[in-house]
Amino acid sequence: MKNKHLFTPCLENKVFRDPIHGYIHVNQQIIYDLIACNSFQRLRRIKQLGATFIVYPTAEHTRFSHCLGVYEIARRIVSENEKVAQSLSEEEKIYVMIAGLLHDIGHGPFSHCFERITGINHERVCDDIFLKDTDIHQVLESYSPGLSKIIASIIDHTYPKKLCWQIISSQLDADRMDYLLRDAYFTGTKYGEFDLERILRTLRVYENSLVVKASGIYAVEDYLMARFHMFWQVYYHVNIRIFEQMLIALTNRIHELDKQEEDEFNYFDKLIKPDNIDLDLYLSFDDGSMFELFKKLVHHKDKVLADLSYRLLNRDLFKEYPYSEENLETLRQRAIQNQEDPNYYILIDSSNFNATRPYISNGKQKINILLNDGSIKEFSQVSSIMKSLSKANETHEPYIFAPRQD
Amino acid sequence: MKNKHLFTPCLENKVFRDPIHGYIHVNQQIIYDLIACNSFQRLRRIKQLGATFIVYPTAEHTRFSHCLGVYEIARRIVSENEKVAQSLSEEEKIYVMIAGLLHDIGHGPFSHCFERITGINHERVCDDIFLKDTDIHQVLESYSPGLSKIIASIIDHTYPKKLCWQIISSQLDADRMDYLLRDAYFTGTKYGEFDLERILRTLRVYENSLVVKASGIYAVEDYLMARFHMFWQVYYHVNIRIFEQMLIALTNRIHELDKQEEDEFNYFDKLIKPDNIDLDLYLSFDDGSMFELFKKLVHHKDKVLADLSYRLLNRDLFKEYPYSEENLETLRQRAIQNQEDPNYYILIDSSNFNATRPYISNGKQKINILLNDGSIKEFSQVSSIMKSLSKANETHEPYIFAPRQD
Amino acid sequence: MKNKHLFTPCLENKVFRDPIHGYIHVNQQIIYDLIACNSFQRLRRIKQLGATFIVYPTAEHTRFSHCLGVYEIARRIVSENEKVAQSLSEEEKIYVMIAGLLHDIGHGPFSHCFERITGINHERVCDDIFLKDTDIHQVLESYSPGLSKIIASIIDHTYPKKLCWQIISSQLDADRMDYLLRDAYFTGTKYGEFDLERILRTLRVYENSLVVKASGIYAVEDYLMARFHMFWQVYYHVNIRIFEQMLIALTNRIHELDKQEEDEFNYFDKLIKPDNIDLDLYLSFDDGSMFELFKKLVHHKDKVLADLSYRLLNRDLFKEYPYSEENLETLRQRAIQNQEDPNYYILIDSSNFNATRPYISNGKQKINILLNDGSIKEFSQVSSIMKSLSKANETHEPYIFAPRQD
Amino acid sequence: MKNKHLFTPCLENKVFRDPIHGYIHVNQQIIYDLIACNSFQRLRRIKQLGATFIVYPTAEHTRFSHCLGVYEIARRIVSENEKVAQSLSEEEKIYVMIAGLLHDIGHGPFSHCFERITGINHERVCDDIFLKDTDIHQVLESYSPGLSKIIASIIDHTYPKKLCWQIISSQLDADRMDYLLRDAYFTGTKYGEFDLERILRTLRVYENSLVVKASGIYAVEDYLMARFHMFWQVYYHVNIRIFEQMLIALTNRIHELDKQEEDEFNYFDKLIKPDNIDLDLYLSFDDGSMFELFKKLVHHKDKVLADLSYRLLNRDLFKEYPYSEENLETLRQRAIQNQEDPNYYILIDSSNFNATRPYISNGKQKINILLNDGSIKEFSQVSSIMKSLSKANETHEPYIFAPRQD
Repeated sequence: MKNKHLFTPCLENKVFRDPIHGYIHVNQQIIYDLIACNSFQRLRRIKQLGATFIVYPTAEHTRFSHCLGVYEIARRIVSENEKVAQSLSEEEKIYVMIAGLLHDIGHGPFSHCFERITGINHERVCDDIFLKDTDIHQVLESYSPGLSKIIASIIDHTYPKKLCWQIISSQLDADRMDYLLRDAYFTGTKYGEFDLERILRTLRVYENSLVVKASGIYAVEDYLMARFHMFWQVYYHVNIRIFEQMLIALTNRIHELDKQEEDEFNYFDKLIKPDNIDLDLYLSFDDGSMFELFKKLVHHKDKVLADLSYRLLNRDLFKEYPYSEENLETLRQRAIQNQEDPNYYILIDSSNFNATRPYISNGKQKINILLNDGSIKEFSQVSSIMKSLSKANETHEPYIFAPRQD
Repeated sequence: MKNKHLFTPCLENKVFRDPIHGYIHVNQQIIYDLIACNSFQRLRRIKQLGATFIVYPTAEHTRFSHCLGVYEIARRIVSENEKVAQSLSEEEKIYVMIAGLLHDIGHGPFSHCFERITGINHERVCDDIFLKDTDIHQVLESYSPGLSKIIASIIDHTYPKKLCWQIISSQLDADRMDYLLRDAYFTGTKYGEFDLERILRTLRVYENSLVVKASGIYAVEDYLMARFHMFWQVYYHVNIRIFEQMLIALTNRIHELDKQEEDEFNYFDKLIKPDNIDLDLYLSFDDGSMFELFKKLVHHKDKVLADLSYRLLNRDLFKEYPYSEENLETLRQRAIQNQEDPNYYILIDSSNFNATRPYISNGKQKINILLNDGSIKEFSQVSSIMKSLSKANETHEPYIFAPRQD
Repeated sequence: MKNKHLFTPCLENKVFRDPIHGYIHVNQQIIYDLIACNSFQRLRRIKQLGATFIVYPTAEHTRFSHCLGVYEIARRIVSENEKVAQSLSEEEKIYVMIAGLLHDIGHGPFSHCFERITGINHERVCDDIFLKDTDIHQVLESYSPGLSKIIASIIDHTYPKKLCWQIISSQLDADRMDYLLRDAYFTGTKYGEFDLERILRTLRVYENSLVVKASGIYAVEDYLMARFHMFWQVYYHVNIRIFEQMLIALTNRIHELDKQEEDEFNYFDKLIKPDNIDLDLYLSFDDGSMFELFKKLVHHKDKVLADLSYRLLNRDLFKEYPYSEENLETLRQRAIQNQEDPNYYILIDSSNFNATRPYISNGKQKINILLNDGSIKEFSQVSSIMKSLSKANETHEPYIFAPRQD
Repeated sequence: MKNKHLFTPCLENKVFRDPIHGYIHVNQQIIYDLIACNSFQRLRRIKQLGATFIVYPTAEHTRFSHCLGVYEIARRIVSENEKVAQSLSEEEKIYVMIAGLLHDIGHGPFSHCFERITGINHERVCDDIFLKDTDIHQVLESYSPGLSKIIASIIDHTYPKKLCWQIISSQLDADRMDYLLRDAYFTGTKYGEFDLERILRTLRVYENSLVVKASGIYAVEDYLMARFHMFWQVYYHVNIRIFEQMLIALTNRIHELDKQEEDEFNYFDKLIKPDNIDLDLYLSFDDGSMFELFKKLVHHKDKVLADLSYRLLNRDLFKEYPYSEENLETLRQRAIQNQEDPNYYILIDSSNFNATRPYISNGKQKINILLNDGSIKEFSQVSSIMKSLSKANETHEPYIFAPRQD
């Protein structure tokens, strides 16, 4: 295709069927070409919710469909919401759609857990994908030289016009709106449901910033409560935290062995040296690779490796015990008796529960409400519910994770 | 049918199709016979949400289907929830189902608004229906002499075993669970959705009282938030409050005229002399009667009556103005200028917003949670969200309702 | 408002919440003004499915919300479907929306049954509403002189451009698409569901006529099967047919008495002299009026009238008996014995089952499919399923309806 | 656990959240232990719909959740449907639940396609899993010696009591009912929806065989139409057929190379020698293994292998061309010109479309209807729709699949 540019339409409008949005509409050729990139297709092989499938058996949906969903919400905001549409140039509308589509392009398997394993920040990978010579970079530059940097700057919030990245990433953004609805649908819970249509209708722009009309307050409260409940019922489910801690323990063991002797894990090991990411390798690594690794390690001569891999592969998980010095000591004694190295068999839950606060009124990304008189108030000033909730202080006793006692 | 008793099964199990519960199952003949009573069939002609249809055009569902729904939830609680089933005698299970079915039998059209119009408390009518010689009374007594009093005592909370009426009427009861789901479905809002199945599964009995297992906390939070949002988005919608105030004004006008002279409204008027309820008349009065009355009054020689009736019939509603002495004075001047009697054309919103508090921790009907260690805590002690919310103080400026200015 | 015209936008875009379409969007002031007409508001008091509530207790939705739904589908077809949009002038788009909104404006209570009672064809009433001096007529003419006639001609299929009325009334039209989805939703059945979005996306225009792209074939098959099943499971349910026959019997009795003597039913009676419709009276007559009439007639001295009214009011329905000469004779004997006039107590089911054929390939309103090669084929030529079904011949034994024997 | 037997209850009733059934209830310890088997857990790594995700991005649900769903429907049939419950011994009820749970235990990745690749019949693998010394076999025998054979005989239809296997596998069985609803939900299509509750309620037993009460006819028609539409819109989507043909071509190439020389593919190769299944290897092979294989083969020196693997990995699919001698010749010429071996680059679609007939009245597994008079009729004798459809003859031109021409 010659003379292709940002606005080149698809030869034929393309749609994807999607249970959350009905159809996902692709009208520009650049969007179509980005979806076709191997780096993007690979997101089909990375589950959106990592290990959540061990608790919710149907939570098998992928980052691929989530990214399409974020794109779709972004597309609707910039094209259907009049006030937003008027505040963006035609180029910026496409930028926002692309940023929505690609915001998760840097993710690896088991997502945030993988970051902790490898020390690789997915945002750094994301930057590499945009700026190094990848298929994504090539497509972007082929349509508009310099586009890669623009998209990267929207994703890392350095793009000058705040509105552009707020649509993708803020307290009330296309990313969260898609994942709450999607995760609720695919887990079969009802906690994540809220009124997307109403929120989209009540978005407004005030001083180049995304705000919500007063009539959208209840829909936003509902959305924040949905998020809050999803955290507690799904995202922070104790068994998922156990799976993740066990996976971290497994990786620590690989590092440990690696120090001791030259080893055959160089495939996985290359990944986990953060100062030297092999991008091609990273992009070839997905959920399936992880499970293939477990299958191999099950036969490893090191018993810790073999056992932890077996447990992760076959869902033979540790159990949670309330944290106390006494419990810790008892479990340690038992571990030693069973010849289980406490470094790998006594794990401490270290979830960051602050993330679950339903809404943080003094954060950088507070939600602002546009009142009927044209003035602006921070959300917790107009919602007594959120005012109360922003002070809520969930304190949680940490757990010890250790093998189940028969 | 000879020798019929509380447990006489239906000849053939009867089911009603229902969008909320799939099917509503009737297995006992007494339930079937109660549903067939004229006094119960009449609930088909009374909308569950009174004037709400003027804002949500599809809110046309009736007390009839709601009552079936409450019965169905009550039936499931007493038969499917093991702990509850073990705490009730077989007779009490039937009592609870009947009380669920009949809890709203005393309602008239436009419900709470009608009570204010007529001065007739629907609970008093309810008592009359049980204890006087009505079809309902006859059916109950024919199955088990004295049954009417038992059911009446469950409905008015004087039945000795608390658990029996808590299932029908408490902070977390079959009534509210049905109406939230039903009202959400028929208005087409999503605010009222919550996880009924999970709540039903986590109900427990503690010292003869209904409590919720700790694992049901999030479902209960969701349910309380649903209720809260339904209040603000549906039940307390300003246009519905306007309709109701106008209806009260209309009735006041009828009283006023009645005092002045003998009048032809004796049909409606008999109803509104609370010291002397004509039960047959009451039971013949439904939403349709109300609208027929409006149609007649449109032609009345009294202009206030004719105009208000016309407006209620044809949805020509007043408008809300923020309450202030200044606004009040301006609107009064205008009314006088337009020859509109301020008693009927300047109405003050008097909604009781306290009812909308999501949860009141110090009330008689607080929700108790059964912790994993077997102890009990009041809900707001274990839900920091509800702790915050129970202190939330929604203050609302009252409105003035007056004709729209062109 | 001065200088108002067809395209005058609403001051503020108006939306109605609706469970089927999410929101119904009103953007033109003329649409808003038509909805505000008393003749249209009255549709709030006429149930979409007449007596169906006696079988499906939640089938309480009204012609008002259905008409809004047809308008909304029509609006989407003329504005979102590119091919249709290109085939219509801007004026015609508004015409089609108005015709969708008003297509049922002539309906009375219990719909088709009412027509048989009164001899009044609802299409004739519809014409009167457009062309006589009604509120609807006035609004239409105030925006564009002559508009009433145009809308009437779209509704009666005499408007020259076929496409305009095909969108509202054909084998695959906004009317049917809305009522199938709406009736399924409000009855709580699943038979009426089909993929509206896909059908809307695959509509095309071929020689000024509405056709469906080949990729929409399965969605159309689904829609036709949905319609077929709704007929058998909902619309033609035997108890509804019984209710309707009993209502017809009641009306016949009124006529009969009327012939014999001067009578007090002139209110209802004026309606049922088809040569002289009192339009104001007709427009004031709704479901509620019907039930008020039953309530009065219950006390009538004529026993047939009183009994049939009682039965209709309190759902004490006849029962169906298979039609046979033998059954007929037995039932007649019993009726005579019970002093029940066989003219009113032995009713013959006379439903027209031909209407339930899923699809009639040789009718005037066949569905045409646009093949990928640009050619057109009649639906049953490309769908072997429909080819088979168009020949299906459901034969049904008629029933006798008579009082239940105890 | 000592003295464990078929009816040993779970210590605590276990539930799985599931969007199709709400909750899946596990009450017996044997069911719980079977789910915990590695051979069963492995089904979490095999997608229910194989390559369908390339067309419907959210079709990522697994055989694991499907098997739980079939178990749940079977459990409800044998425990909630009175007539079925009365026809089975308590042991048989557990057998049926187990058979439902394990009916797909023999499946490999890409399911039916995998069978064609490997020549391994999944039913044969299934038999091996039951009868050889696997974890499944051990659990079954530990609860009741001889149980493995019983379950195997239910799954292969040799168990003497027909009813037991009809619940799992017939024209109207738990398997199909679950997969239609599940596949519809996870693809986001509406074609697969039908009224499960009604079918479950109308199942009856007649001469030890599963039949449907007359009042369930429409629900069954709906179910058969759902199945029919799912075949055409989802299961037989042309792009999925292309993916599968390409996968078969890839495997053929591996065989071909294997014949020519000793090769490094022995991992995969061992699998595809049907006379000598390595069961452990088979059970370790899942969707992820397949994609890992593609990733490796991309770098293979054989260009056909490398190219086909690349295409399958990155969704660079062939395109369909109508089958004709002329097209075939043209495509062959082009292939030769492009140095593409026609054996791997010109593929002929060979789908068996007979499978899509909505209902085959003369098959072994016809559906029988129990009429109100107690007699039995074959389904197409009472449903004129199905009578017509059973004769429907969908003829489809085959396709040629070849690389897309730019």
